Amino acid sequence: MNIKLTIEYDGTNYRGWQMQPNGPTIQSVLEQAVSTFLGAPTRVTASGRTDAGVHARGQVVNFFCDREPHLHRLLRGLNALTPEDISIKGVEIVPDSFDARRSGRSRTYEYRILNRPAPSPFYLKYAWHVHDPLDVWRMRKAIFCLEGEHDFSSFRAANCDAPHPVRTVYRVSLDPIGDLLVFAIEATAFLRHMARNIVGTMVEVGRQQRTAKSFAELLEVRDRTKAGPTAPPHGLFLMEVKY
Amino acid sequence: MNIKLTIEYDGTNYRGWQMQPNGPTIQSVLEQAVSTFLGAPTRVTASGRTDAGVHARGQVVNFFCDREPHLHRLLRGLNALTPEDISIKGVEIVPDSFDARRSGRSRTYEYRILNRPAPSPFYLKYAWHVHDPLDVWRMRKAIFCLEGEHDFSSFRAANCDAPHPVRTVYRVSLDPIGDLLVFAIEATAFLRHMARNIVGTMVEVGRQQRTAKSFAELLEVRDRTKAGPTAPPHGLFLMEVKY
Repeated sequence: MNIKLTIEYDGTNYRGWQMQPNGPTIQSVLEQAVSTFLGAPTRVTASGRTDAGVHARGQVVNFFCDREPHLHRLLRGLNALTPEDISIKGVEIVPDSFDARRSGRSRTYEYRILNRPAPSPFYLKYAWHVHDPLDVWRMRKAIFCLEGEHDFSSFRAANCDAPHPVRTVYRVSLDPIGDLLVFAIEATAFLRHMARNIVGTMVEVGRQQRTAKSFAELLEVRDRTKAGPTAPPHGLFLMEVKY
Repeated sequence: MNIKLTIEYDGTNYRGWQMQPNGPTIQSVLEQAVSTFLGAPTRVTASGRTDAGVHARGQVVNFFCDREPHLHRLLRGLNALTPEDISIKGVEIVPDSFDARRSGRSRTYEYRILNRPAPSPFYLKYAWHVHDPLDVWRMRKAIFCLEGEHDFSSFRAANCDAPHPVRTVYRVSLDPIGDLLVFAIEATAFLRHMARNIVGTMVEVGRQQRTAKSFAELLEVRDRTKAGPTAPPHGLFLMEVKY
């Protein structure tokens, strides 16, 4: 029996999704909860890894078990067995061919920026606080070049282990939502630090430290050292995985 | 010189706005910061008290000082002198006649409900988690009777010290916003626990434990014991004060 879970987590206290020698990870905590519930050691597969400090509103994972579980009891049981900063939102039975990572057609991330002089107690752990005024129109103009199939080497972390740097971006947007400036990006998949490197570079455009043209040229030069800094992890949320 | 501040706070760790014999209050922390910045003991007046655990996105306070302060320096200084869960969003000079409490024409509160089986790590301290499905249309139908001038005795806490129980409600609404169900209410002013008692009773209507008609009748009977329970404080936000 193949089970799909949709989960949320506050990444603040974790060393990311994947098993690490030191410190807790979402994967280790979730595998322990599933294994306890099923009474058998169980591996879980996620749609993709999230880095230390990154949050998820709609991460998808799957695992196999011998018998068909009672779904409502599974939902309640896993929520009882995980700490408060991890929540299981949905459970469903899926065909055996479903694989949370390989079956994923696209991932959508959001990056939240609090752009005002004063910090906010409500976004300390959930948005990047940028004091300086940002030029939203300039940033919007810059990011549209990302749509389509491109080599994202300029936005790829040095330790990224993906076999190749080409990804297809379906959609980018940048909108003021309440107090926040929300950058959204949907793509086939993401290279390591890709979303945060794009945001760090986009903020340079918003601060008038870089032109929209020089942003677009990064896709051609394929050189990480030419792009901006990596935006901090706590503004990033994995929102949705489409299958 | 009369100074108006617009502030945000996460009420989780405070015993409410007003000075208390035990435990920190927003008022005590803010007065200490203002007094330190000005170098003289200073009292601050708020638009109204918020209870222990209640949050604010747009609380307004004012205080008097001898000399005209540099406003940007005041904003930065007060943010540096207050803990992370209190933020000063805006500072301005106002006429001496301005009084944050007496000059206020209306206060708007929002109450957030997370209505789904699973909890969310992002709303543990910022929304009331109601597992059972709520009938939003039924709740909407019930609350419209609140608009206008009414005697709110049925929704008034036993220890409320207001001289009379009549208030004018300008606007109520209940809308799904993202994962949340958001109740908003704008009124001249609020009795003690009024917003939370309304929400606790409204949720009874949503759970089919009470009819919309019995909700409306509460305005006539003026009896606190006939209304529902007080909703927990952590879903409530003071959003805006109009002058």
